[in-house]
Amino acid sequence: MSLWAEERHDAGLDLRYRVRRTLFSEESEFQRIDIVESEGYGKMLFNDGVVMISERDEFVYHEMIVHPALFVHPCVKRALVIGGGDGGTVREILRHPSVEHCRLVEIDPAVVEGCKKHIPQTSAALADPRVEVSIADGVAFVAETDERYDLVIVDSTDPIGPATPLFGPEFYGNVRRVLAPGGVVVSQAESPFYEAERQRSMVSILGDLFERVRIYNYSNLTYPGGLWSFTFASTGDLCPTGDFDPARVRESGFEFEYYGADVHLAAFALPAFQARNLSRRLTPAKGRG
Amino acid sequence: MSLWAEERHDAGLDLRYRVRRTLFSEESEFQRIDIVESEGYGKMLFNDGVVMISERDEFVYHEMIVHPALFVHPCVKRALVIGGGDGGTVREILRHPSVEHCRLVEIDPAVVEGCKKHIPQTSAALADPRVEVSIADGVAFVAETDERYDLVIVDSTDPIGPATPLFGPEFYGNVRRVLAPGGVVVSQAESPFYEAERQRSMVSILGDLFERVRIYNYSNLTYPGGLWSFTFASTGDLCPTGDFDPARVRESGFEFEYYGADVHLAAFALPAFQARNLSRRLTPAKGRG
Repeated sequence: MSLWAEERHDAGLDLRYRVRRTLFSEESEFQRIDIVESEGYGKMLFNDGVVMISERDEFVYHEMIVHPALFVHPCVKRALVIGGGDGGTVREILRHPSVEHCRLVEIDPAVVEGCKKHIPQTSAALADPRVEVSIADGVAFVAETDERYDLVIVDSTDPIGPATPLFGPEFYGNVRRVLAPGGVVVSQAESPFYEAERQRSMVSILGDLFERVRIYNYSNLTYPGGLWSFTFASTGDLCPTGDFDPARVRESGFEFEYYGADVHLAAFALPAFQARNLSRRLTPAKGRG
Repeated sequence: MSLWAEERHDAGLDLRYRVRRTLFSEESEFQRIDIVESEGYGKMLFNDGVVMISERDEFVYHEMIVHPALFVHPCVKRALVIGGGDGGTVREILRHPSVEHCRLVEIDPAVVEGCKKHIPQTSAALADPRVEVSIADGVAFVAETDERYDLVIVDSTDPIGPATPLFGPEFYGNVRRVLAPGGVVVSQAESPFYEAERQRSMVSILGDLFERVRIYNYSNLTYPGGLWSFTFASTGDLCPTGDFDPARVRESGFEFEYYGADVHLAAFALPAFQARNLSRRLTPAKGRG
């Protein structure tokens, strides 16, 4: 018998991964969670049958959701992650010595439990003393908290099920409220090929609330179509290309698997079809010098 | 009943496309060829069960295999395409008014016939009077011809079956021979995620024969993993980034779906893991100014 984990994509595409065994399977209050040991991609986390991370390529997503903002913001001391219960985003944030406090707000305790038990590659970071894990609804959290953050990362699943409100204007109004002056929010922004309308909507919502809105791309091995995006929005004048100093990356001494100073700038060069789709609402890059 | 066209990938991954009907199916001397009408990707061409092109995303591959070289080389008059029987690469080459002659050398007449009949979106270009289609083995062609070209494009399938010699040193020795002074060869170079060893081998073979060797990436919707590469090699001093003038792209007046001046430069910014894999043999970019 051969065992497969199958992600059914709505454009008439199935992605099937050959699986050795299932390590974790739970119907939580919010979603179905499966962790499998795959043949070619290491351990993989699926929420509602959609690939969240694989051990083989999670470095792409996690380096790219974190480092562009942290190498552009002058000094992130306090970071808030909404979602991201696997811990990979927190792991990359903690590499920056400026970070004193990182709060993870994950709605589903089963994601955190499953990853803690089976995917230490990402979840080990959650044990760091600078981290506080809150099992709570991120939408309610940003509406109610008095805390302020230099950086908010919305490390969400697709806009179905529990993640739907994370793509709406009320949520981003509250994200803006919890950001310290000059703060930045980076969000998982789906695929430019498959989700052109969603990307327009996100950029439009952010454009009503933030001074600068940009979108950048990364190439994930296990997401349908490969090319996916993050939005970058700042409350102040911070431009992720014009205010980026490549020397900061070199001076960090960090070793990366995907990110780098060249990759940072290249990620903001959008394919023509995507640039046209979003041109009306994106902020132009700030000229340098 | 639901009908699927399935590409089995060797890392324990299957990609299945929902299909309305099969339009063309032939076992040629060289390979099995299928053209299907898919649910989400328009018509699709499969060689030996591997996706070659889909109407939905062929613009990515064809714009990116063609325009970087044509906007860097000072004046391509004669172009040679090895493989590429679907016609998409020829279509993009012909957009450049400097091109006087374009020869396509495709080994398999069934690919050309099938695409002429069912995929005019790419194959219509083959009827242009500047084009000469030769049904012949590209390996033998470059070994024997007395013709000289400013640009050679190796638009090959994966290195299995008839395309295997197109990845070897003898072939590239002959490609070098048919290039006019200052000529450029661009080749389909597989996936940096899945084919790290193949990319090292290609860059090493090219490095022994050409003055400058670079690799650049593009994001194809229907290729496994999304991120794929092309090599760029030149007999002279031509550098695809240092000698690139973005104004040429603007002045062309061309409308693109994927390519653009920013995308051109960004494509040469390699993810860290790929840059490390290839660092010993790639030529550094020429400084500008």
